[in-house]
Amino acid sequence: MKIAVINPNTTASMTTAIGRVATATAAPGTEILAITSAAGPASIEGPYDGALAVPGLLREIARAEDAGAAAHVIACFDDTGLDAARSAAAAPVIGIGEAAFHVASLVSHRFSVITTLSRSIPVIERNLASYGLAKRCIRVRAAETPVLAFDEDLETAEKRLALEIEASLTDDHAEAVVLGCAGMTDLADRLSDRFGIPVIDGVRAAVTLAEALVRMKLVTSKTGAYAPPNPKAYVGLPQ
Amino acid sequence: MKIAVINPNTTASMTTAIGRVATATAAPGTEILAITSAAGPASIEGPYDGALAVPGLLREIARAEDAGAAAHVIACFDDTGLDAARSAAAAPVIGIGEAAFHVASLVSHRFSVITTLSRSIPVIERNLASYGLAKRCIRVRAAETPVLAFDEDLETAEKRLALEIEASLTDDHAEAVVLGCAGMTDLADRLSDRFGIPVIDGVRAAVTLAEALVRMKLVTSKTGAYAPPNPKAYVGLPQ
Amino acid sequence: MKIAVINPNTTASMTTAIGRVATATAAPGTEILAITSAAGPASIEGPYDGALAVPGLLREIARAEDAGAAAHVIACFDDTGLDAARSAAAAPVIGIGEAAFHVASLVSHRFSVITTLSRSIPVIERNLASYGLAKRCIRVRAAETPVLAFDEDLETAEKRLALEIEASLTDDHAEAVVLGCAGMTDLADRLSDRFGIPVIDGVRAAVTLAEALVRMKLVTSKTGAYAPPNPKAYVGLPQ
Amino acid sequence: MKIAVINPNTTASMTTAIGRVATATAAPGTEILAITSAAGPASIEGPYDGALAVPGLLREIARAEDAGAAAHVIACFDDTGLDAARSAAAAPVIGIGEAAFHVASLVSHRFSVITTLSRSIPVIERNLASYGLAKRCIRVRAAETPVLAFDEDLETAEKRLALEIEASLTDDHAEAVVLGCAGMTDLADRLSDRFGIPVIDGVRAAVTLAEALVRMKLVTSKTGAYAPPNPKAYVGLPQ
Amino acid sequence: MKIAVINPNTTASMTTAIGRVATATAAPGTEILAITSAAGPASIEGPYDGALAVPGLLREIARAEDAGAAAHVIACFDDTGLDAARSAAAAPVIGIGEAAFHVASLVSHRFSVITTLSRSIPVIERNLASYGLAKRCIRVRAAETPVLAFDEDLETAEKRLALEIEASLTDDHAEAVVLGCAGMTDLADRLSDRFGIPVIDGVRAAVTLAEALVRMKLVTSKTGAYAPPNPKAYVGLPQ
Amino acid sequence: MKIAVINPNTTASMTTAIGRVATATAAPGTEILAITSAAGPASIEGPYDGALAVPGLLREIARAEDAGAAAHVIACFDDTGLDAARSAAAAPVIGIGEAAFHVASLVSHRFSVITTLSRSIPVIERNLASYGLAKRCIRVRAAETPVLAFDEDLETAEKRLALEIEASLTDDHAEAVVLGCAGMTDLADRLSDRFGIPVIDGVRAAVTLAEALVRMKLVTSKTGAYAPPNPKAYVGLPQ
Repeated sequence: MKIAVINPNTTASMTTAIGRVATATAAPGTEILAITSAAGPASIEGPYDGALAVPGLLREIARAEDAGAAAHVIACFDDTGLDAARSAAAAPVIGIGEAAFHVASLVSHRFSVITTLSRSIPVIERNLASYGLAKRCIRVRAAETPVLAFDEDLETAEKRLALEIEASLTDDHAEAVVLGCAGMTDLADRLSDRFGIPVIDGVRAAVTLAEALVRMKLVTSKTGAYAPPNPKAYVGLPQ
Repeated sequence: MKIAVINPNTTASMTTAIGRVATATAAPGTEILAITSAAGPASIEGPYDGALAVPGLLREIARAEDAGAAAHVIACFDDTGLDAARSAAAAPVIGIGEAAFHVASLVSHRFSVITTLSRSIPVIERNLASYGLAKRCIRVRAAETPVLAFDEDLETAEKRLALEIEASLTDDHAEAVVLGCAGMTDLADRLSDRFGIPVIDGVRAAVTLAEALVRMKLVTSKTGAYAPPNPKAYVGLPQ
Repeated sequence: MKIAVINPNTTASMTTAIGRVATATAAPGTEILAITSAAGPASIEGPYDGALAVPGLLREIARAEDAGAAAHVIACFDDTGLDAARSAAAAPVIGIGEAAFHVASLVSHRFSVITTLSRSIPVIERNLASYGLAKRCIRVRAAETPVLAFDEDLETAEKRLALEIEASLTDDHAEAVVLGCAGMTDLADRLSDRFGIPVIDGVRAAVTLAEALVRMKLVTSKTGAYAPPNPKAYVGLPQ
Repeated sequence: MKIAVINPNTTASMTTAIGRVATATAAPGTEILAITSAAGPASIEGPYDGALAVPGLLREIARAEDAGAAAHVIACFDDTGLDAARSAAAAPVIGIGEAAFHVASLVSHRFSVITTLSRSIPVIERNLASYGLAKRCIRVRAAETPVLAFDEDLETAEKRLALEIEASLTDDHAEAVVLGCAGMTDLADRLSDRFGIPVIDGVRAAVTLAEALVRMKLVTSKTGAYAPPNPKAYVGLPQ
Repeated sequence: MKIAVINPNTTASMTTAIGRVATATAAPGTEILAITSAAGPASIEGPYDGALAVPGLLREIARAEDAGAAAHVIACFDDTGLDAARSAAAAPVIGIGEAAFHVASLVSHRFSVITTLSRSIPVIERNLASYGLAKRCIRVRAAETPVLAFDEDLETAEKRLALEIEASLTDDHAEAVVLGCAGMTDLADRLSDRFGIPVIDGVRAAVTLAEALVRMKLVTSKTGAYAPPNPKAYVGLPQ
Repeated sequence: MKIAVINPNTTASMTTAIGRVATATAAPGTEILAITSAAGPASIEGPYDGALAVPGLLREIARAEDAGAAAHVIACFDDTGLDAARSAAAAPVIGIGEAAFHVASLVSHRFSVITTLSRSIPVIERNLASYGLAKRCIRVRAAETPVLAFDEDLETAEKRLALEIEASLTDDHAEAVVLGCAGMTDLADRLSDRFGIPVIDGVRAAVTLAEALVRMKLVTSKTGAYAPPNPKAYVGLPQ
């Protein structure tokens, strides 16, 4: 089966890291299509960047569907454009934020999330509330480290992240930690070993959940929330 | 004061109706700038249309800000792009859905919402939950009438709407009704008279709330959720 | 239009300050009727004072209605007697607490409230929950300063208030602050300038919202929660 | 021990029925002081009546405390004035609505409430939410029968009540039913026998809970929500 | 009336203390049957111990019912096996955790709970949520003292408990404290005197609530959640 | 990898069906250990049966762990004993109810659950609330068909189930349906084809999620809710 893993920002080096982890996690026989969006911001930090990334993301999902993808992963922790993508695609779509929250719920009673910048906290909190999982998350923390810092100076970024994990264990009594950015994907194993708790990376979580849906032959319900868009004129959009 | 009322779909006749109602409601001294988005879908029905409307909406907000708008109204009941717009704009931004819910809360204990198509129900329910007002709304109903039907055959559309209002009063014990589409803006007074309950139109609600904010000199807080976007490269977006 | 702003405590100097701010905020053409209740406690601090203030308040609302008020504002942050007043009055009624919460929700994702004494915290928390806006408020804090201290020694009271605002920004990550007492109405602009965030005063908020309702010709729904009282004997009440 | 059972409306025949049931339920050694308020409405139907009943109620509680009451019961299902009474009294105070909800939670997973008129439904729903027990109550129904009808024509009133109980079992899958008015107190046993489910009467529930508190020597906490009122001037109130 | 108070762990000395307190609290005429389970763990600390205690508990409840118990009290603060016991028994069943939460709600607006070990916190939080009373409880704290420490070295255990009560008053603004273990039953009066707030012991609370139900002739509803078990084969269970 | 799928009731023919579906769903290289509990009820219908099944289940989990299971699936839709099993086992544990809810959340906005008997509805509703997913589930329905009917007369049972699915689509506007009993596992594909919506079977869902956890090397967090049991004496339990 082919699984499209789409990075909705335009930074190709992030896609490379995401694709590497996705491929390493996938079951034998799964082919990962790691895709960088051709239009949008260099990183997604807050709702403005998120909104501008969606049209480009939707085009990549349409292309991946034509290329035979059996499932799509949106590789931004904010799950940018998830509802729109579910409406547009025939194959199932999973956001890495959503995937990480569901997986964390299976290995802990209460988890915390560590994201990059505090402006993303409300986006993540709304997603948690919308998915129903707000009560499972004790607290969303920010390492106050920009997304691309994880691409540029991983060591320093990891130090900041580790400080927040420590605070989360001590102050919030978190039982597990969710890494709140696709750019942190390389750090999950090392941090899990260091702190002795489950550290959940959304890329891995979304890839394995996508495989699970495909193996169960489950696709997005098309009655109700994710009904396909009505045919109509769209003006002035990039092709 | 100038208030920009931006229709995020590309149907200019809807903008005309919205602008007429906005101007009629505004206080003396308020100038309404009724604006049609130059890029996006002809109507917004569900999350896919909504996502594709936002980049065009954000450009109009930027232009309106340059033109001296003291506040912005997003004239789509789904409050499409509200968070992104609040991050980007210096002036306050109000969605007509949000405005209608707040106003309905001031004149009733429990209200219902009647929207166009049932695929918009989840969008509206999520907004209500995100604003905190979910418990004030008994039920979101759909008249199963497309957005543009209110532009093309208002009489038939009004009949469908009236049937749902009736059901809402009888079955849901609604005390007030919120009209769930900017296209219904012309009907509020007539339906209120007919049913003897408050019928709330988001356009009127948003314009008067925008005036209230401006008169109180309140603008969007820029610490936290609506911090301005970080400077960065945006690739492949329409200008 | 005439808007009655009723101070439900019996301290006339507080009414003077409230009336001054209300008049300064109102649109041209709005006449503010600033009214002091003739019966009740000198200040409202907690549910016992609140309960004893309501019969006096209801009489002033009846009189203001006879005097042609198009809307009523209850100028106590606890929104004392709001439901009873909505049942009794034909014109819309707005509490300054409620008004401040709705307005704060339009300019911030999460706000905090600073009230006078901690015994008022549960009253305010219940109101927030009842209005549906509990999740929008991070925390209700108390400056531990009695209501009348704002009337008698504003400078000291302001210092205490400023300390709590500072704590709220630092510890609660509040994006906006609501002033939790009508006695603080003179301080909003100065505190907003000093802290660089929206500081919301309920008197201003209620007056502008009342104007909005009147301009939209919206009155309280009389089916359901706010149905007019059944005719019956009332014994032993002051006239 | 003496337990004051205070009817906050001014209809003495209702007090007689309430006192009879309270006395029959109380343990040997408990003396019931059945008291009619000297000031207020003839019946409490909705928030306006409730607000006007509270000052009279508070005076009766003060008198009962002087007369040595070890606990107070507010015999109105709306729990009118409960917070104010808890602040003012040294002895514990229990509302019959609150008592019925707690007791129903001990003998059923989900219960329904049948009250008199639909205008009382929002009052009861807010109380349930405020107590935290909203999820235990499936639905609040109204028999559309005024309070005093239970005093004047019990047979007809009982028929209406029975119809709603039946609907509640069939349509709401209620496991127990709470009688939502002190005027229904005589009907609990008969209705429980007839329908084969627990039918809970707030008067009995409050009296036995009051005895429980007294036997455990528990009184209202005076730190926080129910701190005693600050000394201050009260103007124009009946003595 | 006979009330069975069943200790679902196998430590008889704990049962002795529980029985002594239960008897001292009960009304004249109530006979307390203090029973130690014959099968299960020596103490219940967390969900594993709880699960293993239930079959033994259910046998004791069946025996107590044969012995004429009019009500059953489960004397473990986790309310272990409460739903199963309610399904199986004809007489009403009350857990001491549940009882304490309901009683605390009658004498405070917000209470805290101090339990033994932090692994019990999630069990208690789930119970609070399931009963609907989660919002009434500010925080569940652990004294990090094993259950049997209260049996073996009460003085040291009391010191640890007192430290948490102090923190709860200062940091959580608790108005009342619930003792979160049957082993703490002897300490309630002393701690209440020392801290000047209501300190609620579940054993006392459950016994007096059980008496209240019996006096009102209320038993568990057998339609719905607590329907009696269907007859079927049970294999390999202890008799 | 070996995954233990444990049927906590003692009906071996149900285990056979469960094992067949689990094996068919598992990825190449996964070995399914389908295990019938040696002690407990013949079927689990309600909390009494559930409580009596847990000690037997915990023994099978301990044995499966000795046999090298990398993950455990509890094949009862009530997720009987899930918390206790997570505390006791080193390998991750997934309940089929929980798994189905998480998977349904990935392919629909709102789903419904169809279980066997209405006495199981409260158990399932509490689980949904405890997992945080209550709002994603519109309604839990019962086909009023005992568990073993699916083993004995599948055709009739399927008809009853289909009627409830139809009602759920028409009346509840469900977008997906979760089959609420392990005994229904053979029906998922057929019902999904017939109704054109996702029909989710917990056995398949739990097996694929268990594989996902193992592939990510995630195990249950042992700090907090699922800390291993303290060593202590357990009396009178079956070995």
